[in-house]
Amino acid sequence: MSSRPAPRPRSHYACFTSLDTRWGDNDINGHVNNVVYYSYFDTVVNRTLINAGALDIHHGSVIGLVVETQCQYFAPLAFPQRIEAGMLVAHQGRSSVRYEVGLFAEGSGETAAAGHFTHVYVDRATRRPVALPSTLKEALQRLILPADPA
Amino acid sequence: MSSRPAPRPRSHYACFTSLDTRWGDNDINGHVNNVVYYSYFDTVVNRTLINAGALDIHHGSVIGLVVETQCQYFAPLAFPQRIEAGMLVAHQGRSSVRYEVGLFAEGSGETAAAGHFTHVYVDRATRRPVALPSTLKEALQRLILPADPA
Amino acid sequence: MSSRPAPRPRSHYACFTSLDTRWGDNDINGHVNNVVYYSYFDTVVNRTLINAGALDIHHGSVIGLVVETQCQYFAPLAFPQRIEAGMLVAHQGRSSVRYEVGLFAEGSGETAAAGHFTHVYVDRATRRPVALPSTLKEALQRLILPADPA
Amino acid sequence: MSSRPAPRPRSHYACFTSLDTRWGDNDINGHVNNVVYYSYFDTVVNRTLINAGALDIHHGSVIGLVVETQCQYFAPLAFPQRIEAGMLVAHQGRSSVRYEVGLFAEGSGETAAAGHFTHVYVDRATRRPVALPSTLKEALQRLILPADPA
Repeated sequence: MSSRPAPRPRSHYACFTSLDTRWGDNDINGHVNNVVYYSYFDTVVNRTLINAGALDIHHGSVIGLVVETQCQYFAPLAFPQRIEAGMLVAHQGRSSVRYEVGLFAEGSGETAAAGHFTHVYVDRATRRPVALPSTLKEALQRLILPADPA
Repeated sequence: MSSRPAPRPRSHYACFTSLDTRWGDNDINGHVNNVVYYSYFDTVVNRTLINAGALDIHHGSVIGLVVETQCQYFAPLAFPQRIEAGMLVAHQGRSSVRYEVGLFAEGSGETAAAGHFTHVYVDRATRRPVALPSTLKEALQRLILPADPA
Repeated sequence: MSSRPAPRPRSHYACFTSLDTRWGDNDINGHVNNVVYYSYFDTVVNRTLINAGALDIHHGSVIGLVVETQCQYFAPLAFPQRIEAGMLVAHQGRSSVRYEVGLFAEGSGETAAAGHFTHVYVDRATRRPVALPSTLKEALQRLILPADPA
Repeated sequence: MSSRPAPRPRSHYACFTSLDTRWGDNDINGHVNNVVYYSYFDTVVNRTLINAGALDIHHGSVIGLVVETQCQYFAPLAFPQRIEAGMLVAHQGRSSVRYEVGLFAEGSGETAAAGHFTHVYVDRATRRPVALPSTLKEALQRLILPADPA
């Protein structure tokens, strides 16, 4: 486990939102179950895209299919804590986007957990990959860190 | 279905809190699944009690066991809506409390769903009912509507 | 709590199926969380209807909306137990069906929990109630107890 | 996405078990939500260890903390399918075990999804890593593929 990544600082992420924990998020060991972190990932990224008008989950012609997810856990979280989530678009392809998400205990400077998921955007009917819609590309701009000045 | 109860107004409840929906709350029909409403109930009541110092879910000698739950659904809710929850202590026994919860779409005057759950408070080790702790009884005061003036 | 219903025997139900518990079903108190029972209800009834060809959740013109759910909890269940579920159609209206479900620890003669949910069947597009489809009415036959002989 | 791993065959895994899907596993797009796959991972590995007497989640002095999880998704799964899960211990350290899990649609020869999670086993009270208990090491034997004959 020598190469295990370190927690990430807030500066790693481009934008932030917050979300509630729930009673049932805690498992028998009294902390948020590892599975639930992925529901936080799904929630913060999709909510950000929907609120930006970039994703219509009910009627849009394009839907995001998840092809890979990953998470590292650094410190426990527990209901009833409120969680702050940092987001970053780490890679943007023709049809795919890799979102990084970091979860912070409220006020903490380091991630309690950090991971990513990769969406491939497909046509709702054919389920074939499509080029990223322009509204989505615009929304992604605010999830991208500015390049370091030279 | 002639006797089906009507939605409840905000005035039915003694105090309010709010909570997030999650991507996975929506089921295949595009609305919050009926099961998830109960996770909202659990969350808002337990969070209120924990934040009031009336419940220590990790180390407290008393835990709340749920003996009955019920919910009526009046209108759909859907991610990414934010939900407002009204709470009311409808009955308080020696060891048990019946909590009523109403869920409102943000800004709505009527419940999208309303239900209750009944906690019996038991000793963590023996799982036998105990008299309601005084800290809990104090916290419940703010969940009780004042009696109508005569 | 004097009128609290008693556990139900197996003879109360018309047909049985079984299902798995999951690690995350257990909450911080080490038993299946009250919310999760409703996911068992949803699962066993819908699975029975789908397997009988009475419900097409992807493409069918009719979907079942849940208008009321209720559950009483008599004894704890816990992962990794396997659960046996009894089902019964308790009432059948023009557009609605009330399903009773009882959950048994494997091999137990009495319900650990028992409840019901009421589906109103609606047109997928208009969300207006429709008469129960004939394939559904046929499938419901096996969920109805035979009348007692006179 | 050129290096995206391929689905795994059944021969990749050392032992198999099966588990149910649930109604609520399907998300708005009609397939099992990416989050839910991790609840399958948790369930099949912990159930296998508990049934082998290698893990006592209620009273054992050792608990497994998850430090990393990862999943790749190759083909959709959907309720009410039954799922077959292959398991493999891919790495065993002094205190940690990396479990690989592959999920197959019933009867399929290739994984619909494949991933891993890494447990660090810690003392329940101090939450400090401990050497793998001998009962656990024995149970892990059946999750290890025999070495290829030379």
